[in-house]
Amino acid sequence: MIVLLKEHPDERQLDNLLGWLRERGIDVHPTVGEHQTILGLIGDTSKIDIDLISALDIVDDVRRVQEPYKNANRKFHPDDTVIRIGSTQIGGGSLTLIAGPCSVESEEQIVGIAKAVKASGATILRGGAFKPRTSPYAFQGMHIEGIRLLLKAKEATGLPVCTEIMDASQLPLFEDIDILQVGARNMQNFSLLRALGKTRKPVLLKRGMAASYQDLLMSAEYILAGGNPNVILCERGIRTFETYTRNTLDLACIPSLKTLSHLPVIIDPSHATGKAALVPSMACAAVAGGADGLIIEVHNDPAHALCDGPQSITPAAFDKLAGELEQIHQIVQGDREDVIIR
Amino acid sequence: MIVLLKEHPDERQLDNLLGWLRERGIDVHPTVGEHQTILGLIGDTSKIDIDLISALDIVDDVRRVQEPYKNANRKFHPDDTVIRIGSTQIGGGSLTLIAGPCSVESEEQIVGIAKAVKASGATILRGGAFKPRTSPYAFQGMHIEGIRLLLKAKEATGLPVCTEIMDASQLPLFEDIDILQVGARNMQNFSLLRALGKTRKPVLLKRGMAASYQDLLMSAEYILAGGNPNVILCERGIRTFETYTRNTLDLACIPSLKTLSHLPVIIDPSHATGKAALVPSMACAAVAGGADGLIIEVHNDPAHALCDGPQSITPAAFDKLAGELEQIHQIVQGDREDVIIR
Amino acid sequence: MIVLLKEHPDERQLDNLLGWLRERGIDVHPTVGEHQTILGLIGDTSKIDIDLISALDIVDDVRRVQEPYKNANRKFHPDDTVIRIGSTQIGGGSLTLIAGPCSVESEEQIVGIAKAVKASGATILRGGAFKPRTSPYAFQGMHIEGIRLLLKAKEATGLPVCTEIMDASQLPLFEDIDILQVGARNMQNFSLLRALGKTRKPVLLKRGMAASYQDLLMSAEYILAGGNPNVILCERGIRTFETYTRNTLDLACIPSLKTLSHLPVIIDPSHATGKAALVPSMACAAVAGGADGLIIEVHNDPAHALCDGPQSITPAAFDKLAGELEQIHQIVQGDREDVIIR
Amino acid sequence: MIVLLKEHPDERQLDNLLGWLRERGIDVHPTVGEHQTILGLIGDTSKIDIDLISALDIVDDVRRVQEPYKNANRKFHPDDTVIRIGSTQIGGGSLTLIAGPCSVESEEQIVGIAKAVKASGATILRGGAFKPRTSPYAFQGMHIEGIRLLLKAKEATGLPVCTEIMDASQLPLFEDIDILQVGARNMQNFSLLRALGKTRKPVLLKRGMAASYQDLLMSAEYILAGGNPNVILCERGIRTFETYTRNTLDLACIPSLKTLSHLPVIIDPSHATGKAALVPSMACAAVAGGADGLIIEVHNDPAHALCDGPQSITPAAFDKLAGELEQIHQIVQGDREDVIIR
Repeated sequence: MIVLLKEHPDERQLDNLLGWLRERGIDVHPTVGEHQTILGLIGDTSKIDIDLISALDIVDDVRRVQEPYKNANRKFHPDDTVIRIGSTQIGGGSLTLIAGPCSVESEEQIVGIAKAVKASGATILRGGAFKPRTSPYAFQGMHIEGIRLLLKAKEATGLPVCTEIMDASQLPLFEDIDILQVGARNMQNFSLLRALGKTRKPVLLKRGMAASYQDLLMSAEYILAGGNPNVILCERGIRTFETYTRNTLDLACIPSLKTLSHLPVIIDPSHATGKAALVPSMACAAVAGGADGLIIEVHNDPAHALCDGPQSITPAAFDKLAGELEQIHQIVQGDREDVIIR
Repeated sequence: MIVLLKEHPDERQLDNLLGWLRERGIDVHPTVGEHQTILGLIGDTSKIDIDLISALDIVDDVRRVQEPYKNANRKFHPDDTVIRIGSTQIGGGSLTLIAGPCSVESEEQIVGIAKAVKASGATILRGGAFKPRTSPYAFQGMHIEGIRLLLKAKEATGLPVCTEIMDASQLPLFEDIDILQVGARNMQNFSLLRALGKTRKPVLLKRGMAASYQDLLMSAEYILAGGNPNVILCERGIRTFETYTRNTLDLACIPSLKTLSHLPVIIDPSHATGKAALVPSMACAAVAGGADGLIIEVHNDPAHALCDGPQSITPAAFDKLAGELEQIHQIVQGDREDVIIR
Repeated sequence: MIVLLKEHPDERQLDNLLGWLRERGIDVHPTVGEHQTILGLIGDTSKIDIDLISALDIVDDVRRVQEPYKNANRKFHPDDTVIRIGSTQIGGGSLTLIAGPCSVESEEQIVGIAKAVKASGATILRGGAFKPRTSPYAFQGMHIEGIRLLLKAKEATGLPVCTEIMDASQLPLFEDIDILQVGARNMQNFSLLRALGKTRKPVLLKRGMAASYQDLLMSAEYILAGGNPNVILCERGIRTFETYTRNTLDLACIPSLKTLSHLPVIIDPSHATGKAALVPSMACAAVAGGADGLIIEVHNDPAHALCDGPQSITPAAFDKLAGELEQIHQIVQGDREDVIIR
Repeated sequence: MIVLLKEHPDERQLDNLLGWLRERGIDVHPTVGEHQTILGLIGDTSKIDIDLISALDIVDDVRRVQEPYKNANRKFHPDDTVIRIGSTQIGGGSLTLIAGPCSVESEEQIVGIAKAVKASGATILRGGAFKPRTSPYAFQGMHIEGIRLLLKAKEATGLPVCTEIMDASQLPLFEDIDILQVGARNMQNFSLLRALGKTRKPVLLKRGMAASYQDLLMSAEYILAGGNPNVILCERGIRTFETYTRNTLDLACIPSLKTLSHLPVIIDPSHATGKAALVPSMACAAVAGGADGLIIEVHNDPAHALCDGPQSITPAAFDKLAGELEQIHQIVQGDREDVIIR
């Protein structure tokens, strides 16, 4: 941490600050210039409140040079986190395809899609039971019945299942669910994050629409700090001025997050673009860019899906795509490591 | 709602769509051009799922021309909503000053600030008990003890109190709180919104960092549709590329939200700018721009505030500011109505 | 400037860097921690290329602590710049109203509007002769004829005139124009900026849609460094995700730019909002926020304006507004100085 | 185009509007609802000024359903544009690698890099002679001497050369340059675009930092409408709230722009990310996403490059990358067409 002092700082205040820092085990190295004094803070500054120091009269600015997250930080955990779920895994060089409909609609639908995507190479089934919808009047999911049907599909195919949890009070209903998804709008619902930190369930944490990489990693830190090491980061598009796509897919997050953190990174091209026609090319791009996997909306009848139809691809399109993804993965795997992780 | 069809739409699919719409009480008026057919949909389209129609093969694009919110919409509720809280009110031409510290820290602190801001003209006290913090390692508030101290300050001054609720499970603790604040990060925590819709407590709903006016009004709609008419909209800055200020304060939201909706609009210059030195000028700007009130962080010792110190102003600065705000309010009041609401 | 070194930096490379910096008159103060070494650079770093240092193998990150602009920097020029134009001025506590149509359309139109806005208190006339339009098919202005008509209006009313220059090659045509406007899309047209730096004409420099305060000040620096001290900064809205308004008006730029720089700040509520109904409230907000003036589109017949009609207000609306602005200016003037400029 | 009228529009004004539209060859189809009347406009509306209609008192809103660009529109030019440059081409299924240093620094440097990148498979050489720099104090390029050295490298290797033009007045100096690059900051320098429309030189048009796909295509339209059909679109990152990368690379622009337009799309991962370590993965992602080519900064000594060093990769890294890109291109080529272009 770097503290820039104002010109001619009050000496008593400066002494107070230096003492307070030293009490916290921080070494302070001052650099005195003609117009400017800089304090270099060495030690574990992750628990120092940057706002407290910024507020002091004698301080002009404070800059962190150390990331404020520790458990999520690659510097302290150089090896990739690999998350094992049943007989499959996320991370560690494998390419994970999570596929399924936006919403669970019926047993026939979810079991049918589960079988289809499994045949094409998906190793995890997704499907929404509790749906966060912008409008109170839109379909909000089948709730408990949706969970029940997902578990039927799991039984029928052996695929682990991933579905969204919206509130800590729902946790008991998710006991047999394999991966708990936290939606973009809940990325900073700290009550929920804290509750998930107390479980040991894998959590797929979606990046908020206005969340920086650091914000995402700080939300992951909430879960990790609670004792749950099984966090999967997921990019699903950020909000920008461009309106042709629903959101702006930020694929540079892949090498960036992998440099900053050891957690696996999954890309959601369906929500990011909001258009089925853009999903295959962005799925290929994500794998070529080094993603550990994809989460893709697949629906046997996108035109009649109860929600998010326009961004779902058909099982046939998914099948063709999965083959292509596997080929691209072969090319880039291995190479990535030298390049990305310094 | 406007539906743009692709060239040469399949006739059977088109007939299906027309029938489906008519069943829902929607009149359809087609406009047939050489390359393009446009369907004009007339009727209550607020409950038609735009995604369902977009997904059809024969459809090129769908555009709403009617806002998807009804209870929050000025078109259906032309008169301003006025929210009465004890002997004070928000909206209806009055200027409401909500002031107090970011966090409740001690009885002495909160009672002292409450007395000071009341003397300067504030009519509502704010103070955080449960604090959503980006970092799991930062101070998270005094929790129940904070609520208890806030109520002490209410008792001592008669000021109604406003504080943030982070989760529906906390509702019983907030029984004596006058205004429940929903933070920007929870603006689309639909579980929480739905729970608040079942109470009749005034809710101060903060705009999310990436939320459009429509998103904010749709979140208000969740509360209103639940039966709670007491929603106060609050702008606290959106996230943009500019980093000098913590967020970008969007004051054009004031006349915009007042055109679109009948709900009162409060501005938070403290969180929007993140710098105490910018608060007074932005507070004046907000009142001149037609805001129904302000929520301002005031701390007797900003340099030692436990959180958000840099954006708090002192009671003395607040006192000076309040006088200026009152004068500006006198000038713009009345005028606004002719100009803003057409 | 702060240089963060990677762990265990190569000693020879480090020596090279230290030598290179010292040659440039920079004092280097290293802070050596267990995992991290920080170099504090003291001296005039404004001409050190941050990219050169970032590129070194031994360097992890570089942060500027000194602003990279000098001529535009309040630190080196504490007094406000006041720009005199004929018998009027911009800055120095006065409130300047620049008003007129988006485009010059005819002698009758421009002279008529000029007389009307002068009567209401405007001291400078604006009007477009060369119009930058997104579409090559839209009306692009009357060009030289527009300049001629503007000068007629100047002659008829005595008002100095402000109009946009799009290219350095047009400079000879603008000889009698009082203020040269650089549009938002040309804010980083460095050829144009350099050419304007060689004149002594006042330049109204509009902030680009994606320009940070620093970017804007760096563009001002181009003009100032060329020897022309007469730069007026103008905020006209930035591009964000919100689409209800054409752009997002960032009024916090007023106290921010005035803290960072000594140049006057003018607000353009017409282009920022794109809606005439929002102009009066945002004009009042800008003045309450401490702006040195406003540039407002006024048209006697907005419904038939050749461009940007929806954002123009009528002379009658301008007249009413100007009175209100003057009252607000009286209240906030003076106060601002203590608060904003620390 | 869709025109939404206000409730109870004035009949005389409505008649005027209908007459005005019919004069321009537009068919108008009204849809009359209880609260709302919608006009469907059929015909060539690309030259109708949307602002003119929006400004009318009787009009609530106007929405384009037809793109405002014609020459750049795939609807009117279904076949891909292929641009031939000497013995190479851009578009039409080929993968074009444009490589070279940010700035030309010396004959040895530019000829050396040209030979290296040619050997690795690059077919076009890039190198900056005139450099747009945010700071007036930064290195601005070698100017004419830089052009001369680029042509030396062309002579030595046979590679066509691409370099940035900053102002129309520079055109004579660029006579022997093969591709004229328009920088992101000049994307809406309409004087420059118009001048380039009068040449027949291929133009590499970079997307502005805040430019939507439509803005980019409208700028292309300026060049195309002038008679020059040789426009290459280039994405180089947009400005968002994320600061870890210099800009946010928007790869969904590839299938989007290819749906909207027939022009080739080139990706610049170097400027988009600003970090050499991120370039290879984003280059692979771009090719997997269907890009027609890449423009990549390659420098034999990135640590001593005169500008933009941190984002340049070495010739060795480029060589390794080029092989990978070719393999990915083989996989996705062909496939893309069915998926992207509907």
